[in-house]
Amino acid sequence: MTVIRFVPPAESDRIRSGIDDRYARSRALADAARINTLSMIEYAGSGHIGTSFSAMDLLAWLWTEVLVDPGPQAAGGGDRYFSSKGHDVPGLYALLIGLGKLDAMCLTGLRRLGGLPGHPDVSIPYMIVNTGSLGMGISKARGMAIANRLDGTPGRIFVLTGDGELQEGQFWESLQPTANGRFSEITVIVDHNKMQSDTFVDRVSDLGDVEAKVSSFGWAVDRCDGHDPQAIEAALARLAGGGERPRLLVADTIKGRGVSFMESGAVGGDGLYRFHSGAPSVEHYAAGVAELVDRIDGTLAGVGLSALVLDEVPFPGRSVPAAPQRLINAYSEELVSLSRSHPEIVALDGDLMVDTGVIAFAREFPNRFIECGIAEQDMVSQAGALALKGKLPIVHSFACFLSTRPNEQIYNNATERSKVVYHASLAGLLPSGPGHSHQSVRDISAVGSVPGLVLIQPGDEAETRLALRWAVEENRESTYLRLTTVPVDVPYRLPADHHLVMGQGTRIRDGRDGVVVAYGPVMLTEAFRAAEILETQGRSLAVFNLPWLNRIDDRWLADALRDQPALFIIEDHYPELGQSAFVAQALARTGLGMPTHVYGVDTIPVSGQNREALDHHGLSADRLADRISAAL
Amino acid sequence: MTVIRFVPPAESDRIRSGIDDRYARSRALADAARINTLSMIEYAGSGHIGTSFSAMDLLAWLWTEVLVDPGPQAAGGGDRYFSSKGHDVPGLYALLIGLGKLDAMCLTGLRRLGGLPGHPDVSIPYMIVNTGSLGMGISKARGMAIANRLDGTPGRIFVLTGDGELQEGQFWESLQPTANGRFSEITVIVDHNKMQSDTFVDRVSDLGDVEAKVSSFGWAVDRCDGHDPQAIEAALARLAGGGERPRLLVADTIKGRGVSFMESGAVGGDGLYRFHSGAPSVEHYAAGVAELVDRIDGTLAGVGLSALVLDEVPFPGRSVPAAPQRLINAYSEELVSLSRSHPEIVALDGDLMVDTGVIAFAREFPNRFIECGIAEQDMVSQAGALALKGKLPIVHSFACFLSTRPNEQIYNNATERSKVVYHASLAGLLPSGPGHSHQSVRDISAVGSVPGLVLIQPGDEAETRLALRWAVEENRESTYLRLTTVPVDVPYRLPADHHLVMGQGTRIRDGRDGVVVAYGPVMLTEAFRAAEILETQGRSLAVFNLPWLNRIDDRWLADALRDQPALFIIEDHYPELGQSAFVAQALARTGLGMPTHVYGVDTIPVSGQNREALDHHGLSADRLADRISAAL
Repeated sequence: MTVIRFVPPAESDRIRSGIDDRYARSRALADAARINTLSMIEYAGSGHIGTSFSAMDLLAWLWTEVLVDPGPQAAGGGDRYFSSKGHDVPGLYALLIGLGKLDAMCLTGLRRLGGLPGHPDVSIPYMIVNTGSLGMGISKARGMAIANRLDGTPGRIFVLTGDGELQEGQFWESLQPTANGRFSEITVIVDHNKMQSDTFVDRVSDLGDVEAKVSSFGWAVDRCDGHDPQAIEAALARLAGGGERPRLLVADTIKGRGVSFMESGAVGGDGLYRFHSGAPSVEHYAAGVAELVDRIDGTLAGVGLSALVLDEVPFPGRSVPAAPQRLINAYSEELVSLSRSHPEIVALDGDLMVDTGVIAFAREFPNRFIECGIAEQDMVSQAGALALKGKLPIVHSFACFLSTRPNEQIYNNATERSKVVYHASLAGLLPSGPGHSHQSVRDISAVGSVPGLVLIQPGDEAETRLALRWAVEENRESTYLRLTTVPVDVPYRLPADHHLVMGQGTRIRDGRDGVVVAYGPVMLTEAFRAAEILETQGRSLAVFNLPWLNRIDDRWLADALRDQPALFIIEDHYPELGQSAFVAQALARTGLGMPTHVYGVDTIPVSGQNREALDHHGLSADRLADRISAAL
Repeated sequence: MTVIRFVPPAESDRIRSGIDDRYARSRALADAARINTLSMIEYAGSGHIGTSFSAMDLLAWLWTEVLVDPGPQAAGGGDRYFSSKGHDVPGLYALLIGLGKLDAMCLTGLRRLGGLPGHPDVSIPYMIVNTGSLGMGISKARGMAIANRLDGTPGRIFVLTGDGELQEGQFWESLQPTANGRFSEITVIVDHNKMQSDTFVDRVSDLGDVEAKVSSFGWAVDRCDGHDPQAIEAALARLAGGGERPRLLVADTIKGRGVSFMESGAVGGDGLYRFHSGAPSVEHYAAGVAELVDRIDGTLAGVGLSALVLDEVPFPGRSVPAAPQRLINAYSEELVSLSRSHPEIVALDGDLMVDTGVIAFAREFPNRFIECGIAEQDMVSQAGALALKGKLPIVHSFACFLSTRPNEQIYNNATERSKVVYHASLAGLLPSGPGHSHQSVRDISAVGSVPGLVLIQPGDEAETRLALRWAVEENRESTYLRLTTVPVDVPYRLPADHHLVMGQGTRIRDGRDGVVVAYGPVMLTEAFRAAEILETQGRSLAVFNLPWLNRIDDRWLADALRDQPALFIIEDHYPELGQSAFVAQALARTGLGMPTHVYGVDTIPVSGQNREALDHHGLSADRLADRISAAL
């Protein structure tokens, strides 16, 4: 039987009290936290290993030797630490559990409802700010420092950033005012592991000479080996002599550090790093833990202590969809296919080449592919100019970032009346593991009123192909293609001759006791299954797939609702200003009185397993069936 | 009689052909364009003098001596020029008219419907991109350069930026990829006039050593006197030796250059520059033109030519409201008053201290005032951290920027469940002079679904005070205070005992033939006057002020609509995803069938005089009366 192995609190205590040498102790604590990080991620089924490991030696040193009185919330006196990159939070959780600052019960709670969110959230002790979208760290640190100064409260603020993160404009925007205000109480540590989501930073967007750049903004800058506690200590001491300047330490690290085969050597022949965000195979997992245990045991033996004893819990297994719809794969193929006959297509990507599926295009058309890095504003403005020059730019990122970070840039492009296609994947409530920074449930609102921008969310692979083809070949305006990333076993089939007509939906189930409208495979599946459940209770609900998010055909709607007693709209979005707002406006236009119920993500979305999140928000088939039944 | 004096095309031709010395010719053309800039702005009643003047010697040199085959659109071969700061466009228009590239008819068309927009728009020849929101220039230039490379089309791209603009993160975000891609075909010129909207750049957010900073990103950088054509020529020649590096020229300039009393000496004892964006007094105008004419005449005399002969047109006068509601003034006073008893209030500003009215607070509470410069992302994240530390941050900017540039940062704050107040002024269609980059008609959509963020737009001064007080003292969540900036003579009065109840509106006029709902003094005034017009036609319309943009009280709504035959919602916003979406959702919730007509800004808003824009979009009282009458 496969087991997950955790370092229990007593063993962490034994390391802390049994190793006198500060440097060796810090290293051993880091390795113990690496074990728990790996195990938490393996147990959860996802999480960011590479970045947690690269930062771990820095974290262990900071939390055991540097921070004075680090409180559990932002408010109050004492030093504070947070990670601006945020996705290294499994490592921080593991370390804080090892230090007794978080409960060991949390070890099996990563990315579970009521457990530890996939990115930092202030509801968890010592997570003093929410991060997960990049580049906000220094700005937040300065806000805290200003509050401290106003209150006369002492305290330093330590911020960890990624290196790929330095591609974000906000990082640079925040540098100068921090120097101007002489915020020497702020120390930024760059976890310079040379890799970002997809591959090496210098292949994505070379950072150039980071030390010279940050120095030129008036900061005290130093550099050290980020895995060597002695070097970290010395560098922080040198920076303490920086006078009134804020401080930045470039810490040279290795992504995946601590487990040999997860280190940068883990980059395959395709140039892609293997251990960024998924859970490893059970073999990789077991081998990784064994390697870490060996090293700790060696250290313990060296000081006359017995070997580490780990707790074991059963591997929870993974539920894997049987024959899922994979929209990203369909998109990826269709993009390549279309691009063969459309030489005007140029694809831009914001460091999400694999996740968005644009990688196949990049390989076949390297000259027409622009890797922009984590720089969405730059990417979108660039796309606008390409369009004015006669190209058809297709911009790739996650919906949560693409709809918000370059929100003004998207509008600026729209006012130029050029044609741009925006690929916005990871849309909606699921996957819910990463947490609210990544769950895009506000993007219809954020870009839905941009003039000349049509939002469409396909319900299966075939419709994904149709939607992209429509955006490229038929739509004369711009398109925001909102895509579900999670693979879904869908219970419905769209007609074989299915085609897109703007504003019109497709009936995927008949019924006469009410109409359910939904979009995207996740909510369509839940809606369809809810209708099946209701059928067993003698209620027959019609279900429509309505992929048009901000274009509603009034006549089609009136027709679909004819002789129906009630309307239910299932939003993979906040209930405010989603598709249901457009449907409601269509109803108001036509003067149609129709009891309407909107079920959407009605609070900030929870981090948890997908089924947990659907249930929690009342959007699982069971919960929907209950709610619809109660409403009828 | 006051007259406006223009340099006619023939006189510009005489300067171009009559002065052999290239440098003297360029200077004289610049001064001639300065006359027309001043006159266009005086005629229009508003426009940016200071920045147009500081850039003028650079523009004249570029357009007469540097640019090869600059086409009227982005597409096609040849060199291209555009201004990233955008608000210097009156100067560019004037110069292009002088060079025969724009029609002289345009001289009286600045900020008029069908004329020349207040910021660049691609519908005008040689305005190759839309700008007006800052920091997008290099990104757009790189998009063009990539298209040129793909097509094998030669051409250089020259981009002018402001210096205050360098506070924007996107500027820095765009630097590194431009160096990495070896875009030596791009030359950026920084119009370093040391002043931004309110005052000196170094008082707002000192830029530090710009040359060192940009050099550290791998750019070829040089510096020169931006008013000396010989120095500009020499600096561009030096930069041409920069190899494959993109090029940036820091041009030292003087804001308002060319008219002695409009230069930096025009900063008053309050530290504020007088000639940023308004039209000068008729006395200042006449004196400015006289000074410019004198200088040109001296040059012409030196080469044996006769003095300049100007065309004259009558001064069109200004329509000034009689006893207007000035919401910003009321806000300004109430903020100071509240802050005396609320020591937790901290105000942040994005270089709009005067326009947002926060200046009074800044003077009384300098320690609690944070001038963030043109750095909205940094400002908003900072505010979030201040809130987590127990402060009540009030963030000040224009709605167009605040709702979009830091859109993700606002959401990130919301997920921390902290309380922040956002002051978003210059909201809505008016003033329509600046054009679509500044007309905020999409912000309800952009932030209206942010959890825990209540949007409210007061209808007069008294309600502005109530709204701010409610945001500070009663609302436990965050508030987005959407404020009309233009002074408006309102024809209605809210009750003396008026108070705010969330989601509920106030009847400002009785009627039985239908209900009109509006918000903010501009649309409330047009709606009220439309009802007065309709009254003369025997139709009686009830008019409601509904300041709650994203919170609707269902019962109040049902009550207001009881026994009414129709509903009209007037949006100072795009009709999509504005207040009417929330009203429609409320109607759908209650199952109320009610013929509903939404009149909003249904295309990208035009630049023009305020009455022109209201008429064009069908939102003036006359047009509304017609539309309502037709619908009834």
